[in-house]
Amino acid sequence: MKVVLEVSAHGGVQGVYSHASQSCQCDMTFAVFVPDRSDDARLPVLWYLSGLTCTHANVMEKGEYRRLAAELGLIVVCPDTSPRGDAIPDAADNWQLGTGAGFYVDAIRAPWSENYRMYTYVTEELPAVVAEAFPADAARQSVFGHSMGGHGALTMALKNPDRFRSCSAFAPIVHPMTADWSIAALETYLGPDRSDWRAYDACALIEDGARFPEFLVDQGAADGFLDTGLKPWLLEAACDKAGIPLTLTMREGYDHSYYFISTFMDDHLRWHSERLAGR
Amino acid sequence: MKVVLEVSAHGGVQGVYSHASQSCQCDMTFAVFVPDRSDDARLPVLWYLSGLTCTHANVMEKGEYRRLAAELGLIVVCPDTSPRGDAIPDAADNWQLGTGAGFYVDAIRAPWSENYRMYTYVTEELPAVVAEAFPADAARQSVFGHSMGGHGALTMALKNPDRFRSCSAFAPIVHPMTADWSIAALETYLGPDRSDWRAYDACALIEDGARFPEFLVDQGAADGFLDTGLKPWLLEAACDKAGIPLTLTMREGYDHSYYFISTFMDDHLRWHSERLAGR
Repeated sequence: MKVVLEVSAHGGVQGVYSHASQSCQCDMTFAVFVPDRSDDARLPVLWYLSGLTCTHANVMEKGEYRRLAAELGLIVVCPDTSPRGDAIPDAADNWQLGTGAGFYVDAIRAPWSENYRMYTYVTEELPAVVAEAFPADAARQSVFGHSMGGHGALTMALKNPDRFRSCSAFAPIVHPMTADWSIAALETYLGPDRSDWRAYDACALIEDGARFPEFLVDQGAADGFLDTGLKPWLLEAACDKAGIPLTLTMREGYDHSYYFISTFMDDHLRWHSERLAGR
Repeated sequence: MKVVLEVSAHGGVQGVYSHASQSCQCDMTFAVFVPDRSDDARLPVLWYLSGLTCTHANVMEKGEYRRLAAELGLIVVCPDTSPRGDAIPDAADNWQLGTGAGFYVDAIRAPWSENYRMYTYVTEELPAVVAEAFPADAARQSVFGHSMGGHGALTMALKNPDRFRSCSAFAPIVHPMTADWSIAALETYLGPDRSDWRAYDACALIEDGARFPEFLVDQGAADGFLDTGLKPWLLEAACDKAGIPLTLTMREGYDHSYYFISTFMDDHLRWHSERLAGR
């Protein structure tokens, strides 16, 4: 693991690191914020998964999570959203595919399957790296994310209910099989058989029996992607039917940007912190 | 005035606007955050002046000021750092001169004197625009800034003690006449006669009799520019001699970045808010 940056912030250290990823067969970069600790205590870990076009850096610079994460004693890990590099397959003129658009799946179609294994990377490889290199309490982990990263958070939680204590999302893609910005990616990475897509779709996972204790979702009512790509009412219907408590709040006037995310960041950090308390 | 962006954030509106500037003879862009107001009250205004290479956007994206400014009811205005455009004189390969490096002076040397009039722009023209277009209480204004913008804040306060109720800075250039990143700019904009520089140098202004009630300064102890460009001890000596109370705090481990600024942003907002309270 190589240190790209380590800088003092809000009493802790905001770091950026890179490492040779086995899952993705390329160097991967990620950000970790570690609060100041008064002793050798291991701290709970909150995973933030970013949206389309983002790297680890967007939320690190604009997410406004450090002040309260420092106060609450939360390690915040922000992975990249895809493999990257000259040797990595890409669709350069399509922001919804390839670089910046890994969709947190393990691709099974060539040439994508060699590198686009973000599901394994984020659920297995990177957690092991983080557990080794940082004062993280692996028994206390939660996950949240934005848009494509909200999709990532919901699906990872549903597939790993014993791993994550809590899961929330800002403007998540709740049903990527039917959302116009994800259908092409799922087909490209997973092939034409839609039954293979269901393992990476929150609504389908719930329909197929996956469960999680509860979800917190905030959604901007002025989000330009609301009707075409997000449709939180589909998650509401799926959760209703399955008996999963969902706190979905429509936020009047808010869009899809980091101005929206940073506004409600504190709410989500506190909510996760309450659920990460205790052993 | 043209609306470039208006987005909901922390209950208020973060806007970006552009207008044809008389002072700078070009279109200028600036950012304004207006908190939510429950009535028609006019709100105090806090001016944030940015450092070298910045536009209005750096602090808007990375400064983390909106949450507390919304809570305290402060309008925050973030001007650009220089005139910009194809027709504007520049020194393209020099980040310490021209675009992004206006140094908050009124240039008197050609060709700079036509456009580089940031002192008049920020102290006269833009305040009139803001007073007209936003619910601002012109009788309650304060100023702060970072690095070159800290220099701007200190000099503007010293030259306009009746205008600003309070002044603070993050890692300011306190004595630009002797700092290696500002000497060339002062000579370029103001000419070789160093007596003309003293009107834009906080330490020289104090030595020449300018006064302000008090200053708050935070400085990262791990700032790479500390010894060559910042030297806060020179401001300390000048304030000591003049009897101006200065609260200068060296912050162990902090550098010159927005990670430093955002960490201490809350402290500065609260400090200004206390001084902006009351009529």
